[in-house]
Amino acid sequence: MSATREEHDALGRLTLSDTLDYGIQTARAKENFPVSRTTIADIPGFVRSIAQIKKAAAIANEKIGVLPEEVARAIVTATDEIIAHQKPEAFPVDIYHGGGGTSANMNLNEVIGIRANEILTGKKGGHTVHPNTHVNMGQSTNDVIPAAMKMTAYGLLARLEQALTEFIVLLAGKEREFATLVKLGRTCLQDALPITLGQQFSGYREGLQRQLSELERVRKTCMQLPLGATAVGTEFGTFPGYKSAVYEALGSITGVGYVPESNFFDGLQNADIWLSVSGALRAVGLLLNKFCADLRLMSSGPRAGLAEITLPAVQPGSSIMPGKTNPVMPEMVMQIYFRVLGNDAAVTRACEGELDLNVWESLILNCISESATLLTAALPLLGEKCVRGIRADAERCARDAHHSLALSTVLATLFDYERASAVAQRAAAEGKTIEAVVVESGIMSAADAKRYLDPAILTAPEKFGTLFDAKMG
Amino acid sequence: MSATREEHDALGRLTLSDTLDYGIQTARAKENFPVSRTTIADIPGFVRSIAQIKKAAAIANEKIGVLPEEVARAIVTATDEIIAHQKPEAFPVDIYHGGGGTSANMNLNEVIGIRANEILTGKKGGHTVHPNTHVNMGQSTNDVIPAAMKMTAYGLLARLEQALTEFIVLLAGKEREFATLVKLGRTCLQDALPITLGQQFSGYREGLQRQLSELERVRKTCMQLPLGATAVGTEFGTFPGYKSAVYEALGSITGVGYVPESNFFDGLQNADIWLSVSGALRAVGLLLNKFCADLRLMSSGPRAGLAEITLPAVQPGSSIMPGKTNPVMPEMVMQIYFRVLGNDAAVTRACEGELDLNVWESLILNCISESATLLTAALPLLGEKCVRGIRADAERCARDAHHSLALSTVLATLFDYERASAVAQRAAAEGKTIEAVVVESGIMSAADAKRYLDPAILTAPEKFGTLFDAKMG
Amino acid sequence: MSATREEHDALGRLTLSDTLDYGIQTARAKENFPVSRTTIADIPGFVRSIAQIKKAAAIANEKIGVLPEEVARAIVTATDEIIAHQKPEAFPVDIYHGGGGTSANMNLNEVIGIRANEILTGKKGGHTVHPNTHVNMGQSTNDVIPAAMKMTAYGLLARLEQALTEFIVLLAGKEREFATLVKLGRTCLQDALPITLGQQFSGYREGLQRQLSELERVRKTCMQLPLGATAVGTEFGTFPGYKSAVYEALGSITGVGYVPESNFFDGLQNADIWLSVSGALRAVGLLLNKFCADLRLMSSGPRAGLAEITLPAVQPGSSIMPGKTNPVMPEMVMQIYFRVLGNDAAVTRACEGELDLNVWESLILNCISESATLLTAALPLLGEKCVRGIRADAERCARDAHHSLALSTVLATLFDYERASAVAQRAAAEGKTIEAVVVESGIMSAADAKRYLDPAILTAPEKFGTLFDAKMG
Amino acid sequence: MSATREEHDALGRLTLSDTLDYGIQTARAKENFPVSRTTIADIPGFVRSIAQIKKAAAIANEKIGVLPEEVARAIVTATDEIIAHQKPEAFPVDIYHGGGGTSANMNLNEVIGIRANEILTGKKGGHTVHPNTHVNMGQSTNDVIPAAMKMTAYGLLARLEQALTEFIVLLAGKEREFATLVKLGRTCLQDALPITLGQQFSGYREGLQRQLSELERVRKTCMQLPLGATAVGTEFGTFPGYKSAVYEALGSITGVGYVPESNFFDGLQNADIWLSVSGALRAVGLLLNKFCADLRLMSSGPRAGLAEITLPAVQPGSSIMPGKTNPVMPEMVMQIYFRVLGNDAAVTRACEGELDLNVWESLILNCISESATLLTAALPLLGEKCVRGIRADAERCARDAHHSLALSTVLATLFDYERASAVAQRAAAEGKTIEAVVVESGIMSAADAKRYLDPAILTAPEKFGTLFDAKMG
Repeated sequence: MSATREEHDALGRLTLSDTLDYGIQTARAKENFPVSRTTIADIPGFVRSIAQIKKAAAIANEKIGVLPEEVARAIVTATDEIIAHQKPEAFPVDIYHGGGGTSANMNLNEVIGIRANEILTGKKGGHTVHPNTHVNMGQSTNDVIPAAMKMTAYGLLARLEQALTEFIVLLAGKEREFATLVKLGRTCLQDALPITLGQQFSGYREGLQRQLSELERVRKTCMQLPLGATAVGTEFGTFPGYKSAVYEALGSITGVGYVPESNFFDGLQNADIWLSVSGALRAVGLLLNKFCADLRLMSSGPRAGLAEITLPAVQPGSSIMPGKTNPVMPEMVMQIYFRVLGNDAAVTRACEGELDLNVWESLILNCISESATLLTAALPLLGEKCVRGIRADAERCARDAHHSLALSTVLATLFDYERASAVAQRAAAEGKTIEAVVVESGIMSAADAKRYLDPAILTAPEKFGTLFDAKMG
Repeated sequence: MSATREEHDALGRLTLSDTLDYGIQTARAKENFPVSRTTIADIPGFVRSIAQIKKAAAIANEKIGVLPEEVARAIVTATDEIIAHQKPEAFPVDIYHGGGGTSANMNLNEVIGIRANEILTGKKGGHTVHPNTHVNMGQSTNDVIPAAMKMTAYGLLARLEQALTEFIVLLAGKEREFATLVKLGRTCLQDALPITLGQQFSGYREGLQRQLSELERVRKTCMQLPLGATAVGTEFGTFPGYKSAVYEALGSITGVGYVPESNFFDGLQNADIWLSVSGALRAVGLLLNKFCADLRLMSSGPRAGLAEITLPAVQPGSSIMPGKTNPVMPEMVMQIYFRVLGNDAAVTRACEGELDLNVWESLILNCISESATLLTAALPLLGEKCVRGIRADAERCARDAHHSLALSTVLATLFDYERASAVAQRAAAEGKTIEAVVVESGIMSAADAKRYLDPAILTAPEKFGTLFDAKMG
Repeated sequence: MSATREEHDALGRLTLSDTLDYGIQTARAKENFPVSRTTIADIPGFVRSIAQIKKAAAIANEKIGVLPEEVARAIVTATDEIIAHQKPEAFPVDIYHGGGGTSANMNLNEVIGIRANEILTGKKGGHTVHPNTHVNMGQSTNDVIPAAMKMTAYGLLARLEQALTEFIVLLAGKEREFATLVKLGRTCLQDALPITLGQQFSGYREGLQRQLSELERVRKTCMQLPLGATAVGTEFGTFPGYKSAVYEALGSITGVGYVPESNFFDGLQNADIWLSVSGALRAVGLLLNKFCADLRLMSSGPRAGLAEITLPAVQPGSSIMPGKTNPVMPEMVMQIYFRVLGNDAAVTRACEGELDLNVWESLILNCISESATLLTAALPLLGEKCVRGIRADAERCARDAHHSLALSTVLATLFDYERASAVAQRAAAEGKTIEAVVVESGIMSAADAKRYLDPAILTAPEKFGTLFDAKMG
Repeated sequence: MSATREEHDALGRLTLSDTLDYGIQTARAKENFPVSRTTIADIPGFVRSIAQIKKAAAIANEKIGVLPEEVARAIVTATDEIIAHQKPEAFPVDIYHGGGGTSANMNLNEVIGIRANEILTGKKGGHTVHPNTHVNMGQSTNDVIPAAMKMTAYGLLARLEQALTEFIVLLAGKEREFATLVKLGRTCLQDALPITLGQQFSGYREGLQRQLSELERVRKTCMQLPLGATAVGTEFGTFPGYKSAVYEALGSITGVGYVPESNFFDGLQNADIWLSVSGALRAVGLLLNKFCADLRLMSSGPRAGLAEITLPAVQPGSSIMPGKTNPVMPEMVMQIYFRVLGNDAAVTRACEGELDLNVWESLILNCISESATLLTAALPLLGEKCVRGIRADAERCARDAHHSLALSTVLATLFDYERASAVAQRAAAEGKTIEAVVVESGIMSAADAKRYLDPAILTAPEKFGTLFDAKMG
């Protein structure tokens, strides 16, 4: 027969198994919101961030003399245990809970309060440490939860930046590897002027570097917290000296220089910060999606596609067609982008809010967290299982570049558009290269044609510049 | 010196030029909402639909004895003039106006009232016919505007269905034209089993036919109107007998069997009907987008792409590269799809509403109207300037189909997957066709290989069925 | 020391623990795609649907004489085990895998093949039953996966319809309970004409009933499957008689009358069916969101809000403000709507596809499944913990209805708009009711004013019709 | 009889009226793309930006010696005419045109070339100045159009920033006006702690200031142009010295310090910059939407709503209900936000692109331009016709704040949560204020209760800090 304890709240009494680490309000939340398989414990860093806030508040309140030292110490010990090792079963609140996060905040208040009681009295029950009066002292769900969300996002973005940095290094290596591999450029999917594969890869790298900077910029805005705003931004419920003390403690605990937002009313009312975070994630996703879509196109074939590059095979491609290999790694990443897109749409709607508090925070955090963790997990897989092993068919690329009718642009540049157009039309009609027609029609000598129509030269300003100088000189 | 007249409303007095066809409330709206270049007159059919409602209401109110006959007649004449020829400058209300369409409704009430006054008294001013008391009798903005929107959508969808029907006929012609043209199928952009170009086109056609039915289904739901609900759904403000009389009149005027919604509270509260309309438009757009994207892919090249088909050139493709031709018609349509997507997102948000009325109707109508008219305009252009002139390179298609390593599927079917896989690997490694390897390795005779690996046979169940029967028999 | 077995595929050999229920391709997929915590086993009904297809195919292939009877029997036994009890650890393929579902299909092929081998030979290894040659006979990932998705959606929608039906019954009960409770209608959030709370609830019910029908309609379209299309729609790889046999078997197994799509090329190419499914889910979500948002508004207060209704308290509302109760159940549901919105955006993008197959099916299924299961789980919670216990403050509602300036509409209807407007302006300026001003200004006797301005009468056409008849008679 | 001229291009000959300012390719585009009523001339600044680029290129090419001086001068004159006064009928290319903007670029090339010919020869026809060879010298559609788009966006954002700056000044004025007006704060739409209306307005102002900075940041990224990249990023087609010369000229012409992008391949491939621009616009829209939604809520009534504030009446509110006034200005702005949301969705899709060029630029520009101009037009209307005239009902606000049960938070802070909760429950049950119950139950003296429960004090940390110090001291 297992022991029980009785708890009460404004709604009445409830008998709980004494093995439970949480209390009555968490039990109610667990019963009210069993809608998804995702709990607050599934969001990396969220429970830890709330625990860090609770610890900082206890230290601050003790320091300014409104929380007894032994209570503060017990709270600190309880929060340290959570920070060190979070027990998922202690935090069963579903991510879809209403009330702007009250259940999440109370879940932490209760787990910490119960454990602190146990530390001080040997019993889980009792109000020597009260979840609201002591653990939540100087705080409101309304400032704790958005503050913890920003701290969580700070960590999620930092991890994504790390993964992206490593991916960029890998891309830069391929850019160097392909620096002189000349291929056909394509616009509107039609044959255009030559380009090197390295130049193309430099575009992928440059875009991601720009968005890496953007992630960093957005992450730093997450260092401004509404902590201290309490219920509606007026700071009511905090005691004199609390604000500076709690930020000092939080800095020590986390090692991050969090500061209070300059306007707490703005901090609670407005959720546009999450549009920025989500926007940065969708931009990373967009660029990865384009990169992956391009890999699919360039590796299409193997015989009746563009077939410029080969992606490493990581698994057989078909249950019915032997010998088929599919671009599964890019396709995985593209689907992740679609999900990130969806999360962005959900976040955008949730950012609307009303009056003195945006209460859709749980949903926002869930979406942001999912997008960031998916991208973070996908990058090394894409890098190691696909990008690192990309091989290019230099011969085919060179042949395609040489056969492009767009080489007529050289004539448009050296002579005029009308003559170039006539050459291109003849080459198309007769199935010949521009070089062949130029020589046949006596526009250039064979040697000049070879020189001026060399795709490799057309990819480098310094090289064709010299040609032009020679011609014009 | 031009004549003026003075008008008043609950806010006070205003002096208007007597040349204006509208009155004081329209003048206020014009001043309040000058935000876009789009007015209610720019939405095809909207002003006419409101005028038809006003006409039907006047006939109905006269019939049940609450509107004097001569007033009713003057209103009917005034509405007939609008129905026959809508003067854009008489309807200057910006499409972005608040209040759930009050300004649009009052714009019609005023133009009709002023003209009816003129008919009866020779003067625009005066209240012989009052815009609210008489023209708006038995009506509220809250039932008139959503009713007129559904009538407008009915017309827009009917026109789109006509354009889509013609497009489908054109597609069916190409399907027949390409019925026996064997080409390579592609999944994951990789070479797969053979298919005929006609089979591929049958997929495009079938999808659009399904969505044509869907458009028709959705259009028919637009025949249920909230007209008669008045302000909040209770029908207050209508006189006994009005409802049946107004629907009878509306049917005569429009030739469409409009009926009252079964639940007027639902009719005003909920806007999910517009999700259905917008959803049908995005589905048409999605299918057109895929078709156009496929045309771009299949016509890529001309030399270093898939180059299976050629789209008619409708303009030179580049300002710098002579001889380039771009798939501009498909690209135009794809951009229209993107716009339709955006309109769907806007409509979805606007459908949320609150309490007893959705007041975002102007925005919904604007988006729906834009999507429908863009698609309707795009279809014949795509059909005539692109689809009709598509040519296929039968030789290249045949060669690609014959070279596919996926023909090894024949061996997996006739023998087993392992043996087929070994053949496919050898063909890949040695750059040979499956047919060649099969013969070389003694799996089949040359004659059998030719017969069993003929791409044309692989596209037709009745043909390969015969082969299988022969083998298994 | 645990036993191992060696397996090979086109990429080479791998040593697997013999305790594993799956084979080499599943092992590769597990290594390739560890990006989310969601596997194909987490999607309700998906693994079972594939198993049902595999069972049907084995029965069909045995029947037409291309699969040995004992192999077919072993496959049937193996699939029955999965159908009866799905072991999550046997299906570790992440939902984000590329290749259009190859890994999911091969996961089933392998688990079934290995178990069938064990049944026949006592050993998991060996090719007595080959995952491709036998288990996948007559099938391709390209037809199996979209077919299984539709079967999965069929089940998900059926469950949602059940939950929605029960919710509608509950709503209808509240509609009857509130049938005569007169309250203020509001449009543009401004005081308007009276309405009964029952009428308002009838709008919620009616909208959901419409979307219930829509769910059913869409579910039935999921009965048309691409099964039999194989790789590109040509049915190549199936043997004569297979198609009719497999659908007959599938009907027996599932009890659902699944039929082949009329055009298999369409079936593989186009994904617009998923727009319809997702569209139906977002429409249900939209209506629930509006209902919940209205509940929040109407229960706002308790003292300084609309305060027309009270929602049952299910938990204390604030960690800092004692005595606060929040509308947490509606807020939970609204967040689920936002997620459904996001899923719709993701699905829409994924429906684009290209050429002969849409390969984004995993993502589509994941989103559809999440939206449907969240809505299904949320409905009974919202019903039981919130809607059932809604109480209305009849006194306050009556007072608000009686004080509305919009009662001046009665005068506009009985007399004319101008006189009504004057009364409304005076009532506003003097802070009086319309009734008071009407009597004071001698427009009506006190008795008439009471009769004509009774909010209860204004909510019922048959009642105010009688009044009008009396007046006009 | 009007004169004609004959023109030719790669597709053949065409006879044009000699009154036309444009040439054959524009004529083709006009015929190919008549799908919307929007042309490139409708986008504020776009035609001018292209003309500025053409002028800069002519100056640069003349300077480096590859364009004859008299040709350059004629081009400069022709572009100056367009910059000074753009004739809409000269630029009839529909905004939905494919080819990545070729038609827009050629429209400018032709209008400038024809006019320059006329300047030099007195005739519109002839190739003394050729649209491609001379006007487009050193340029490609692929660098000109995205460069002109960024220049256009630079101007659009600058104008929006100006409008937003003025709006913020207005908001700041209201913030000061309402600095001491105490009202009820609301979270989850439930009565919460007091706040001043000025504090609430400070949140609106602060959010918009943040996004004003963001607009400025994003606008500055538009100063980096791909001009000089030509067709695929290699700069091929430009002559030595062109790049520095063209940017120098462009700076002189526009007065803006435009610089070349550091990586031209990135500049053509990636469109994520437009996600940032669109993201900044949606964030501005989101904040305005919340502000407007809050205005609607706070002004709800006038009798049975929150009724804390009154918005200026700008028009009668109803066609049927005299005396109703609707929040039409906020509702107009909210609909603009929904449109901005839709445009963001369209832009996001269009930013995907492929290979060496994003060709969806027309659509992106159209959406960005619409969002920016709508917001720019809406801000002064909202400001002048609504915000400036907002009046607050100080008495009602004070009463509501004083009656809030959330004042029990004071007790939770001074004593403990349990005692506060008991007081709140009693106050709720007995319909009393917290102050009354506190006194009745002997927790505080009447004087203390008045002092500690004064809503005005609870809104100011420095004031309640003093109280706390007194108590704790």
